[in-house]
Amino acid sequence: MKREILLTPGPVELHPRARLVLSGPQIHHRTEPARGAFLAVREGLKRAFGTEGEVLLLTTSGTGGMEAVAAGLFSPGDRVLVPVSGKFSERWAEIGEALGLSVERLSLPWGEVLDPEAIAARVTPDTRGLFLTHSETSTGVLNPVAEIAKVARERNPELLVVADAVTSLFLAPFALDAMGLDAAVSGSQKGLMLPPGLAFVALGDRALSALKPRGYYLNLVRELESQRAGEGAYTSAIQLVLAAREVLSVLLPELDAHLERKAHWNRSLYAIGEGLGLVPVPAKEGAPAPEAFQSPATAAFYLPEGVSQKVLTGAFLERGYRIAGGQGPLKGRIFRVSLMGHFAEGEVRRILADVEAVLGEVLLNPDGPPRASRRSG
Amino acid sequence: MKREILLTPGPVELHPRARLVLSGPQIHHRTEPARGAFLAVREGLKRAFGTEGEVLLLTTSGTGGMEAVAAGLFSPGDRVLVPVSGKFSERWAEIGEALGLSVERLSLPWGEVLDPEAIAARVTPDTRGLFLTHSETSTGVLNPVAEIAKVARERNPELLVVADAVTSLFLAPFALDAMGLDAAVSGSQKGLMLPPGLAFVALGDRALSALKPRGYYLNLVRELESQRAGEGAYTSAIQLVLAAREVLSVLLPELDAHLERKAHWNRSLYAIGEGLGLVPVPAKEGAPAPEAFQSPATAAFYLPEGVSQKVLTGAFLERGYRIAGGQGPLKGRIFRVSLMGHFAEGEVRRILADVEAVLGEVLLNPDGPPRASRRSG
Repeated sequence: MKREILLTPGPVELHPRARLVLSGPQIHHRTEPARGAFLAVREGLKRAFGTEGEVLLLTTSGTGGMEAVAAGLFSPGDRVLVPVSGKFSERWAEIGEALGLSVERLSLPWGEVLDPEAIAARVTPDTRGLFLTHSETSTGVLNPVAEIAKVARERNPELLVVADAVTSLFLAPFALDAMGLDAAVSGSQKGLMLPPGLAFVALGDRALSALKPRGYYLNLVRELESQRAGEGAYTSAIQLVLAAREVLSVLLPELDAHLERKAHWNRSLYAIGEGLGLVPVPAKEGAPAPEAFQSPATAAFYLPEGVSQKVLTGAFLERGYRIAGGQGPLKGRIFRVSLMGHFAEGEVRRILADVEAVLGEVLLNPDGPPRASRRSG
Repeated sequence: MKREILLTPGPVELHPRARLVLSGPQIHHRTEPARGAFLAVREGLKRAFGTEGEVLLLTTSGTGGMEAVAAGLFSPGDRVLVPVSGKFSERWAEIGEALGLSVERLSLPWGEVLDPEAIAARVTPDTRGLFLTHSETSTGVLNPVAEIAKVARERNPELLVVADAVTSLFLAPFALDAMGLDAAVSGSQKGLMLPPGLAFVALGDRALSALKPRGYYLNLVRELESQRAGEGAYTSAIQLVLAAREVLSVLLPELDAHLERKAHWNRSLYAIGEGLGLVPVPAKEGAPAPEAFQSPATAAFYLPEGVSQKVLTGAFLERGYRIAGGQGPLKGRIFRVSLMGHFAEGEVRRILADVEAVLGEVLLNPDGPPRASRRSG
């Protein structure tokens, strides 16, 4: 099987320190070394999420964490507001509906940056929750969640604001408490550069006060009690916990520099695409969004006229790279290239050169490479 | 950190072929190679579970699979019967209660083998479900689930019988359809010798007909639709799927020999303990249970008078082995030694010799090893 380098917005190229840990022998999750790692990861993630509250580790993908937090904070019938402008904000709405919440969907064009005032205008005194998506991975938008939380809470101080930080944690500045968020969710296979299989749920003080026991496997009250002592309530993916401790020990001491590097790489991807005349996806009031609203998790562009996703994906695969297409209504209309995973600086320079070369070739030959070049590829 | 060899009934020593795969680079779960592995694992597990139905992979521990199947097959208020004779059968009862089912607990002494007639006697025309635990890992009992299913269904042909096969799959003979079971659950970190993080849910024809969409992350209807095409509905722990394919390719062609080897190893553990005068836990009608009711997943013995769990655990740790104590009402009363993980035959001979030596030493010195021996340990 030919090795594909992942330029997808998750899963991503693994951190080499994580791979080292993951090749090791199994340890038992109910022993002192395991509890030590578990508590260290919870503490490290509290710093990463920027909260004085709690962070819980769940053996699920990010979606499991989203459902756990929605179930733990709200009751069937509760009115929650969900602006939907991409696949992952739509997921919040679907989860709320599956849990029997009274979901008010605010349907917006996919790819648009959320407008704080427009959202706040929909908040009423009986709105119990607001579900936001910080980095909307499906469109490349970084939403201004702090501003939204601020104006929304002016309308209703009791509102609980929950953010999907799946592809913003370790990629864009994040600070749960300071941003006025009450809860957030992330996962292992994104900015932390681990394989999938762990979700992280951050709970601020107001969320902790509101938390109720729900269901069994995703019951955050039970997890909180167990995890304060350094163990998941059920068998945790302890090998991912050990790998998380390892990567956190590298990332946390230089988090600001790491975020700047990631943002710089992503800006370089946008510069290459725009230099070739491609139109970036994130939009604000109909025009390309300023850089501040481009998620550092991925660069997203509209497919140029006449270029199919299949030809573009194939051209990248010939060079050994896996990129991502669009999702939902943007399927077949946009493509995404991400440097979210682990790369050395030298690799990034080579990848950026290759991205520019592949895009240039495809723009010249939108029906696919000429036969000779295909043979030698 | 000193390396501990796991003689615990899960997690276990990993299969070396799994470790090789797990040290590899990340692949993307929505690509052809990933779908190929996903479908191969589902097919391989259908053979292992012995069903013409379906097997679904969930990115959870085994407990997540238990909740998913209980939620998918039953509705709030449904009457379900749960014989409780250990920690994992108790978990079925807790899950049923958390889901709002009308749970009838049949409370039995922990460590007893279930009596088919006594259970059947509690089945009524309105009993919708029966939750069983095939290998009750907490006590070392292998319950006669096929016999129970048979007599219980004679009382109520509509009954759905669900089995926890977490520590019986790949350890004891299992055949969902032939044993008259409707659904079963297992997990990656037991007989398959992988790290924790994947649950397996097997559904026979009657279970597939009864399946309803429930919740979001644990919604088996949605998973079934997605997994028929080779993908989890959400991000799967694809690295564990790849490792599962690898281990299945070794185990399935020689499954009978593998089961006989595992049973033989476990019988050797029991022979050593009984040779030293220890009393095995599994009991039938008050007396030690015949071999057929000893789970090959673990040997379990009562702690001899005057020997504490702490001293025994410590003595094994000095030799580099991690064993398990009791749980629930058996905490501090029993201990468990398991050869469920991967070992070469030569290692097993050494481990069995060490187990006999450690047990012999502790029985001679129940207050712990003399100081000189402790220093040289």
